[in-house]
Amino acid sequence: MSVDRKPVVVIIGAGFGGLAAARGLRGAPVEVIVVDRANHHTFQPLLYQVATAGLSAPQIASPIRHILRAQKNARVLLGDAIAIDAAGRRVHLADGEIAFDYLVVATGLTHSYFGKSAWAQHAPGLKTLDDALEIRGRILTAFERAERETDVAKRAAWLTFVVIGGGPTGVELAGTLAEIARHTLTDEFRSIDPAQARVLLLEGGSRVLSTYPETLSTRAARQLERLGVEVRVGAHVSGVDDAGVSIDAGESIRARTVLWAAGVQATALAQSLPGPRDKLGRMLVTPTLQLPEADSIFVIGDLASVTQDDKPVPGVAYAAKQMGAYVAHAIAQRVRGGEFKTSIPPFRYRDRGSLATIGRKAAVAVFPGGIRLSGLIAWWTWLLVHIFFLIGFRNRITTMVDWMLAYVTHQRHARLILADTATRDVGNRRS
Amino acid sequence: MSVDRKPVVVIIGAGFGGLAAARGLRGAPVEVIVVDRANHHTFQPLLYQVATAGLSAPQIASPIRHILRAQKNARVLLGDAIAIDAAGRRVHLADGEIAFDYLVVATGLTHSYFGKSAWAQHAPGLKTLDDALEIRGRILTAFERAERETDVAKRAAWLTFVVIGGGPTGVELAGTLAEIARHTLTDEFRSIDPAQARVLLLEGGSRVLSTYPETLSTRAARQLERLGVEVRVGAHVSGVDDAGVSIDAGESIRARTVLWAAGVQATALAQSLPGPRDKLGRMLVTPTLQLPEADSIFVIGDLASVTQDDKPVPGVAYAAKQMGAYVAHAIAQRVRGGEFKTSIPPFRYRDRGSLATIGRKAAVAVFPGGIRLSGLIAWWTWLLVHIFFLIGFRNRITTMVDWMLAYVTHQRHARLILADTATRDVGNRRS
Repeated sequence: MSVDRKPVVVIIGAGFGGLAAARGLRGAPVEVIVVDRANHHTFQPLLYQVATAGLSAPQIASPIRHILRAQKNARVLLGDAIAIDAAGRRVHLADGEIAFDYLVVATGLTHSYFGKSAWAQHAPGLKTLDDALEIRGRILTAFERAERETDVAKRAAWLTFVVIGGGPTGVELAGTLAEIARHTLTDEFRSIDPAQARVLLLEGGSRVLSTYPETLSTRAARQLERLGVEVRVGAHVSGVDDAGVSIDAGESIRARTVLWAAGVQATALAQSLPGPRDKLGRMLVTPTLQLPEADSIFVIGDLASVTQDDKPVPGVAYAAKQMGAYVAHAIAQRVRGGEFKTSIPPFRYRDRGSLATIGRKAAVAVFPGGIRLSGLIAWWTWLLVHIFFLIGFRNRITTMVDWMLAYVTHQRHARLILADTATRDVGNRRS
Repeated sequence: MSVDRKPVVVIIGAGFGGLAAARGLRGAPVEVIVVDRANHHTFQPLLYQVATAGLSAPQIASPIRHILRAQKNARVLLGDAIAIDAAGRRVHLADGEIAFDYLVVATGLTHSYFGKSAWAQHAPGLKTLDDALEIRGRILTAFERAERETDVAKRAAWLTFVVIGGGPTGVELAGTLAEIARHTLTDEFRSIDPAQARVLLLEGGSRVLSTYPETLSTRAARQLERLGVEVRVGAHVSGVDDAGVSIDAGESIRARTVLWAAGVQATALAQSLPGPRDKLGRMLVTPTLQLPEADSIFVIGDLASVTQDDKPVPGVAYAAKQMGAYVAHAIAQRVRGGEFKTSIPPFRYRDRGSLATIGRKAAVAVFPGGIRLSGLIAWWTWLLVHIFFLIGFRNRITTMVDWMLAYVTHQRHARLILADTATRDVGNRRS
């Protein structure tokens, strides 16, 4: 490397991890290039609010180049990374390529349908804003279709909603769906009573929120049931089509709206990375978050499989942030100290707790040291933490306003069904 | 008609006219059925703000059934009206039909490309929220593409924006585009200087805002030029493709982003209505807003061609509202007084003035009696009027907040590029 040119650090993905890595390099003598296939950073923990028409998409997203505008050593490019040439130190984009000296892969995970890719069109997942808007359209359209449907069985199918997967996302979706049906839409229909809608949460394991302490799982299940959600554990889904879902025990549930929150896996990009990976495709990294076979490549966030004290580091937002800050520091150290100086301590995850909301007034939370909260106080904690972490002053203000209003009125302020924007032919509007 | 059954009034379209008609019938002994192919009422005057990433879509839209929830004689159906059987008194939907005793057609107008339908994909218009999001995506993507483009001519084409049509919509779009380029995006790129973007407004006639007094046209043009817009009058567009536009005089402008604000026409639905229409397909109605050949059918809003004192009633929001209120009253009178009582005075439009905004601080306004405003005071008037007419308390509050913030900071809070939501395959992302 010539003395004149600064080392180039390419960061793929501007989620929590990628952004933290970029910002962590702001004083370092490097050129940072952030590449994302979207122009915006998304606050994923609130995607379920967009999916359930409670918040608008822009409220939980910020343009990446706006976030990094003041960081002079950083540039932002809109691009789709297709493959990584580790030996040649290049990232191949759909329409170009970028050479790197160091690479940080922070692309997260995508949905896994356990090999049944045909299920994807019938049961959308919730990872991106586009996912959220797709789901929102399906939920709102289901009630509209039910209102016009005269056949009793077909109407019931439109008013049956199934959420597959009892982790935090599934719990949040199911709880909020029940609130919409029982409270938000109450006076607005003439043929149907939205409160009669069925909301089912199907979990294959023995309890919802299986990564939480068992007492909190029990409380969450109870709060869901109080909201009117039918919680089914030990329910393994064997089939999903446009009529509904089948469960292993031979049961069929007729439901026109099915949402997927049950499985994740690495994206296709990760397949081109060298080295070992786990069964979800996540990369096994060294204690310093590098690929064992390519030490110029770091993997952080959900895509990294990191074990600490015999437990996996969870795929949560602040784990990604901590990893991003760590690799920024590691890279800066190397660059300042010369090539491959190796005296950087291993990454150490600091658990700050977990929060999952269930409905308008309920949540569960667990913090280090055994502190557990549930119910309303957990919900307020959850609210404040999420508002704090939202990027952008205006987003915080308007999100707080919307929450106050929704808390009091049950109203949701983003109840729009938008057509497939690729075609304005109304005949092609999704049903 | 039996004495027991209430007369059914079907209203197609829940824009300003259709909603006013529905609400006007709230005390009447009728059953009101509002049909719209969208689930939301859109505040069209602010569509250009969504198209330019200044407001989010939900801020200017409200669910129709939420607006009418308290009106017990009204029901709302999501449906796409395909044709009207005037003799049989039925509305044919894409998936059903509805019988009526009275029909109010309030479907507005759609874009006209003067017969050149191939232009539509290259130059989207701005009539619906879907249009606005399409345009927003194209504008933001253009700057992103320019940032990555190394070829000088291609980069210049990405940084050239053409707006066709110098009426209020075109003026608003062009002015706001110029502000985005010169102010909003200033620090955020590294290869390009967004302030170097060209924004052209092409008007076929001799002046922009041709329906306004000439002095205001001149002021508007000057304010646009001060913002950096190149205003071209007498410019007739002869071709539009993905490389740009051609103007009659043989000139070609290379521009990857072209927006259409130049022509309107009736939608396909109107073709099935009986009776005379003008060259835009608008229905010629009687002085009581009925179709001359089918007196159970009223046409209001932009779709109605109404002349008053030898001048056409303009296709503006409050004309539609006045017509909607009028037909509601006319129908209620008939229903109470028995069949076809004819002593209802003709519709009389009360001009309340016209407002067009040009940029962040500039607008022009003309009111009855010759009062004209321009510049900052016109802009404040415009702001207050539009806030007042926005439906929904929360929408007013957040829109005011966004305007204050934008006024001070130039920032725009909805700068999202979203993929074609019909497919999550990134390879199909629109370029």
